[in-house]
Amino acid sequence: MQEVNAYGAYMGDKLLEPMRITRRAPGAHDVQIDIAFCGVCHSDLHQVRAEWAGTHFPCVPGHEIVGRVSAAGAQVSGFKPGDLVGVGCIVDSCKHCPECEAGLENYCDHMVGTYNGPTPDAPGWTLGGYSQKIVVHQRYVLRIRHPQEQLAAVAPLLCAGITTYSPLRHWHVGPGMKVGVVGIGGLGHMGIKLAHAMGAHVVAFTTSESKRAAARALGADDVVVSRNAGEMAAHANSFDFILDTVAAPHSLDALLALLKRDGALTLVGAPAAPHPSPEVFNLIFKRRTIAGSLIGGIPETQEMLDFCAERGIVADIELIRADQINTAYERMLKSDVKYRFVIDNASLAALAPVAGKPHGA
Amino acid sequence: MQEVNAYGAYMGDKLLEPMRITRRAPGAHDVQIDIAFCGVCHSDLHQVRAEWAGTHFPCVPGHEIVGRVSAAGAQVSGFKPGDLVGVGCIVDSCKHCPECEAGLENYCDHMVGTYNGPTPDAPGWTLGGYSQKIVVHQRYVLRIRHPQEQLAAVAPLLCAGITTYSPLRHWHVGPGMKVGVVGIGGLGHMGIKLAHAMGAHVVAFTTSESKRAAARALGADDVVVSRNAGEMAAHANSFDFILDTVAAPHSLDALLALLKRDGALTLVGAPAAPHPSPEVFNLIFKRRTIAGSLIGGIPETQEMLDFCAERGIVADIELIRADQINTAYERMLKSDVKYRFVIDNASLAALAPVAGKPHGA
Repeated sequence: MQEVNAYGAYMGDKLLEPMRITRRAPGAHDVQIDIAFCGVCHSDLHQVRAEWAGTHFPCVPGHEIVGRVSAAGAQVSGFKPGDLVGVGCIVDSCKHCPECEAGLENYCDHMVGTYNGPTPDAPGWTLGGYSQKIVVHQRYVLRIRHPQEQLAAVAPLLCAGITTYSPLRHWHVGPGMKVGVVGIGGLGHMGIKLAHAMGAHVVAFTTSESKRAAARALGADDVVVSRNAGEMAAHANSFDFILDTVAAPHSLDALLALLKRDGALTLVGAPAAPHPSPEVFNLIFKRRTIAGSLIGGIPETQEMLDFCAERGIVADIELIRADQINTAYERMLKSDVKYRFVIDNASLAALAPVAGKPHGA
Repeated sequence: MQEVNAYGAYMGDKLLEPMRITRRAPGAHDVQIDIAFCGVCHSDLHQVRAEWAGTHFPCVPGHEIVGRVSAAGAQVSGFKPGDLVGVGCIVDSCKHCPECEAGLENYCDHMVGTYNGPTPDAPGWTLGGYSQKIVVHQRYVLRIRHPQEQLAAVAPLLCAGITTYSPLRHWHVGPGMKVGVVGIGGLGHMGIKLAHAMGAHVVAFTTSESKRAAARALGADDVVVSRNAGEMAAHANSFDFILDTVAAPHSLDALLALLKRDGALTLVGAPAAPHPSPEVFNLIFKRRTIAGSLIGGIPETQEMLDFCAERGIVADIELIRADQINTAYERMLKSDVKYRFVIDNASLAALAPVAGKPHGA
């Protein structure tokens, strides 16, 4: 067991601050990672502020982790010290259910999140990537083949990347398909890049006139400002697939009406309150579907990382120090980031926590 | 052009009554059918009472039509006088769009319904099967291979049968699958019979304790009374597919929670007001889908009729005279029918309309 510096919150209504946490000594199947960078996901904010039910405190968020292996257990086969690796949203699962056996650990009923998930380790729940080190079972560790200098911008692939890649693959996005991506934020900007790289004709949907040029720069072939009814109507019944990354409640009918027969609208953002209920006629008349998708499994996350490495795809990021996280959250709430904050975890070394006693010690 | 007896309504707030209507002389591609029986669909009631927008009056409902060919145009290849045939919900479409070319005329933007659809024939909209004869382009005429004595009970296959068969086929229902059918009415009772015949393990959902035995008699392997939370919970995460035939607004979350990963809930009933909005988490956590499905295409309707003929599958019906239709509607509103009323169209011969002048003459 070892102590490391971290950044987290003691209560849902408190700011994040420096703290000391413990990490277990690597077991036979464990990989210990010196964290270089950690992306900042909107879920981090929701959970550390106790906006969803069930947050344990102290809470150390972070599930877009990249770094270097600093130790590996005796049974670890695929990783050795010095390797560039990543950890995403999942650090454990039952390993034997049909989902785990299919490499869909994300749909395992016993999936353990990288933070705020149940663990025998102190303090009884997982602590995430806003920290200097993490120890993870090798099954949930990903290999990173991007060059070292892209490492910070690779971090968001571990959640924003796989959360958009998985549904694009599951619904067979490729050449000849017209694909919509709704919302141009952390998830949406990756959705545009990935759908474009898969060869689809990509249309970005935004509520903001000012994002037109930016969406094109990301790879969108066309941009629709969704408040403009005429622009929306021009695309009626024309999409094979629409990936909706917007978590704020909004009309699904406006998007369903854009789908062809047998088209699918897939939601990856979960609103705090439900969306207005969609009209059943909009589903029936063209056999359309509304679906949801949650992150992605470990094999598919590796596939996504390799897909991105081969094509030089990374996230567009703004690098911050750990002590800038509270400001970053406020800016994220105003969508004032292009498109993902990433913490430089080297900045944790200099931070002295207020209390010296590590949690769980 | 010829005059025939029919039964319809002059206004949405009037009872149905006898009337005279005209049918076009059969064109080169037309089949003229002497209607033997016509099923009574809940849509008939909605439209003739102007509960949905856009009903033209006088309105003659009926789109579950069976009878014998009494004339065929010069270019008609597949049918000759004396043949047993059926006509369902569709009597025309554009014939050249991708949907029509795929045999999915039900999803053609120019699909013409068997009643209340646009037509150059008098009076300018189609008039349905509550009548002695109908003239239909051969493309939309189905061959019936059931024995003559089953003919009345075949009629409901033309709408209730294909509306449930098509989604069961589209979502690949077969042996080894656990399939739910929600609602045990005109559509639901066919859904149970068909899913059972396809080899699935079928669970019927009803709000009524009293329907347990009836659902088993139809072919359900198990019956769940959906008001019983404990019974519902016992089936959580276990269904591959659920066919929801209930048009009244109800909770979709209760059904979504029963689906396995990648399971689909397909709606074939369209409520007048939307269902309560489903929780997005219920879609995301197991990559579940909600879909809609509308009737079926002409080739698939023929496939369904042949599937049923080979297995002796028909609807459970109550035969009525045309002049009993208003009473039948009232009973249908109380779900007091097992499970479909069918009009014996021979009863139209004796009916003298109040006004002698045919509509459109």
